[in-house]
Amino acid sequence: MFNIVDLRKDNNEEAAKALYQKLTQRTKFNDGANIIGAVSEILDAVKSLGDKALRDYSKKFDNADIKEIRVSEAEINAAYNAVEPELLQTIRISRQNIWSFHEKQLQNSWISPNKDGTMLGQLVRPIEKAGLYVPGGTAPLISSVLMTAVPAKVAGVSNIIMCTPPTKEGTVNPAILVAAREAGVDEVYRVGGAQAIAAMAYGTESIPRVDKICGPGNVYVSTAKRLIFGDCDIDMFAGPSEILVIADATARPEYVAADLLSQAEHDKLASSVMITDDEGFVQKVADEIEKQLPELSRKAIIESSLKEFGFAVLVENIEQAIEVSNNIAPEHLEICINEPMSMLGLIKNAGAIFVGNYSPEPLGDYMAGPSHVLPTSGTARFSSPVNVDQFLKKSSLIYYNRQALEKTSGNIMRFAEAELLDAHANAIKVRFRN
Amino acid sequence: MFNIVDLRKDNNEEAAKALYQKLTQRTKFNDGANIIGAVSEILDAVKSLGDKALRDYSKKFDNADIKEIRVSEAEINAAYNAVEPELLQTIRISRQNIWSFHEKQLQNSWISPNKDGTMLGQLVRPIEKAGLYVPGGTAPLISSVLMTAVPAKVAGVSNIIMCTPPTKEGTVNPAILVAAREAGVDEVYRVGGAQAIAAMAYGTESIPRVDKICGPGNVYVSTAKRLIFGDCDIDMFAGPSEILVIADATARPEYVAADLLSQAEHDKLASSVMITDDEGFVQKVADEIEKQLPELSRKAIIESSLKEFGFAVLVENIEQAIEVSNNIAPEHLEICINEPMSMLGLIKNAGAIFVGNYSPEPLGDYMAGPSHVLPTSGTARFSSPVNVDQFLKKSSLIYYNRQALEKTSGNIMRFAEAELLDAHANAIKVRFRN
Repeated sequence: MFNIVDLRKDNNEEAAKALYQKLTQRTKFNDGANIIGAVSEILDAVKSLGDKALRDYSKKFDNADIKEIRVSEAEINAAYNAVEPELLQTIRISRQNIWSFHEKQLQNSWISPNKDGTMLGQLVRPIEKAGLYVPGGTAPLISSVLMTAVPAKVAGVSNIIMCTPPTKEGTVNPAILVAAREAGVDEVYRVGGAQAIAAMAYGTESIPRVDKICGPGNVYVSTAKRLIFGDCDIDMFAGPSEILVIADATARPEYVAADLLSQAEHDKLASSVMITDDEGFVQKVADEIEKQLPELSRKAIIESSLKEFGFAVLVENIEQAIEVSNNIAPEHLEICINEPMSMLGLIKNAGAIFVGNYSPEPLGDYMAGPSHVLPTSGTARFSSPVNVDQFLKKSSLIYYNRQALEKTSGNIMRFAEAELLDAHANAIKVRFRN
Repeated sequence: MFNIVDLRKDNNEEAAKALYQKLTQRTKFNDGANIIGAVSEILDAVKSLGDKALRDYSKKFDNADIKEIRVSEAEINAAYNAVEPELLQTIRISRQNIWSFHEKQLQNSWISPNKDGTMLGQLVRPIEKAGLYVPGGTAPLISSVLMTAVPAKVAGVSNIIMCTPPTKEGTVNPAILVAAREAGVDEVYRVGGAQAIAAMAYGTESIPRVDKICGPGNVYVSTAKRLIFGDCDIDMFAGPSEILVIADATARPEYVAADLLSQAEHDKLASSVMITDDEGFVQKVADEIEKQLPELSRKAIIESSLKEFGFAVLVENIEQAIEVSNNIAPEHLEICINEPMSMLGLIKNAGAIFVGNYSPEPLGDYMAGPSHVLPTSGTARFSSPVNVDQFLKKSSLIYYNRQALEKTSGNIMRFAEAELLDAHANAIKVRFRN
């Protein structure tokens, strides 16, 4: 079902490189002139025509006639009646767990006053407006709404809006509306695609301009985010989802198999990797996959995903497993080994780390608390999970008095001269002319 | 010399809007197909040809034959002899001040253990490799090297490299080399332009691939950063520099004039704005500008900058001044008023805030400690100064035990079903089958 890569031999560097390449190159930014051109046209149209462009594109791309762009209070109230009370209860528990975790990320503004009367510091404040993009599609991404909007709300963002494509009937999935309201989203707009990104970046009659846009989307949405970046902040470029399980002989094959399967069902491009130092374990997991797969409804997607991007990697020992994992920099990393905590210090790159046999990835997807919006395709090398800090901004604070400025005035003037900027030196000189 | 905007009248909204537009639209991402096409070609060439492409482009764009791409130890040692001892001393004091300030931004990894035996947390680790781009040009940006490399070093980045365009003779400014070494840059490469960005994003035979690229550059460098973003992290898009001074009748016209002049000398596109509630103060500053200007060497640049992007804005009171400033979201904000600290709580958007009459912007440019690499063109709405956090990444940590997972298993399965992901539910079910 999956592919086996043996990295135990000495001359395995090429096999390792081929694996890394296969995994990171599942999707690449499509910089084809066609897509950039099409998206640029949409951005320009929304900038100049506003709501009219949004209505035209919804007709064209979503086959929907949208009258009211904003989802009304009445529709949101109706959504509450359409959602099962148990699901509402689950959404509320999840929201609370996400809130509790992210509250721990809040930072204070700080100052550092010095004995000479000077003071330096850093003001930390929330951005004012955040925009959340929620893609359409068959499966409603209820949990993703919570996992993005709640951290923004915890940060103190005063206005959170959401855009999501309408169905042909112009409606929005009720569970999405309920999750948005529970998460603290202030306004929901039935607009999708690059036109939604343009609307949030530049504003229209109906949709306010925001300071930051978050959320995944197709290549048009991603390209739009790339092009508007700078006029507005963006979160990251989400690629297909991925899991990496490090397992030794103490792991349970049926658990590991189930976790690999759960990742593979997301997408044909999703990747499921297991790394183990126990050769016998590979067959056990393969057997379990064969056993569990027939009962799963997304069997075809899973099979395709495992065949193309499913790997069992054999290594000499757990240290090597972690080295390979660091090179892959997985979105989700499960550590199913004896004394898993003892390995934390070696892990360099991972979006979220799931420790032990009873921390399966779906726990993190829905209930644990940390955001499930995580860096993919190796970007955990430099990116972080969605977190409160991404909705905060900082200002440096500098306060000097006359005496302290005079003391360092020679240094400032020397620097200014070296950089050929004598008006900079002059700003110091005028203050000490007499 | 500068333009006067009176916002004291009731119907001044249009004047305010025109001002905001004028200031934020000094530069825009040039998404013309020509530039994107030319840069894409450079990226592809460097990806496929490596060092050879770097040499070819250096010949073509910098008119330089570069043999050794990496600057040698001998060249760096020679640079120390070429730099005045006083300047070296100043660089060292500046580096120490930058280090002390940024050390205060360091974050610890944390865990939050719960009574039920579960544990959540966040690992905070530095990125491994950072790449710094330093543009060429007439004035060597010595201080910018310190202001970017030192925060990366404080964060614990283990490998910091720098790229900067060679002169026609293939050399690099000695003061830049000394600043790089003092700041902790490990390797310097004589490569500029989009090709330098490509080399750092993808790696060549000589230049290692990095995790994050920082530093300003021309439209080719910016476009390259935009296109490689995602394969590698980037800092921000730096626009022309800007200052906003809020002054009341207690401010000193000669100081304010000097500070506006010091900003204007950077660039014809630089902007210098003063906001005051004292009509008489405007003329006093204008007189001081006339007085100080003739002695400044960059007089022509200053005159052009002030004429186009220099503004004196009249407001009813200081609260209104801050409101206008929040809308502009200036890179540098000087508060030269009575009891300036009492206004900090109203400031929403600013890169760095300089408090009082003895905290002129050049103090922050060179010596105070906070990085002078700050968000421009209104991006302080959502961006921060270069800081340690930008060189750190986080991983979420999730640990549950059997009992705790069982307790929330119903919630996880309900969510999975609502999102039509039954392999996710299966990952829970297999753990509680018996």
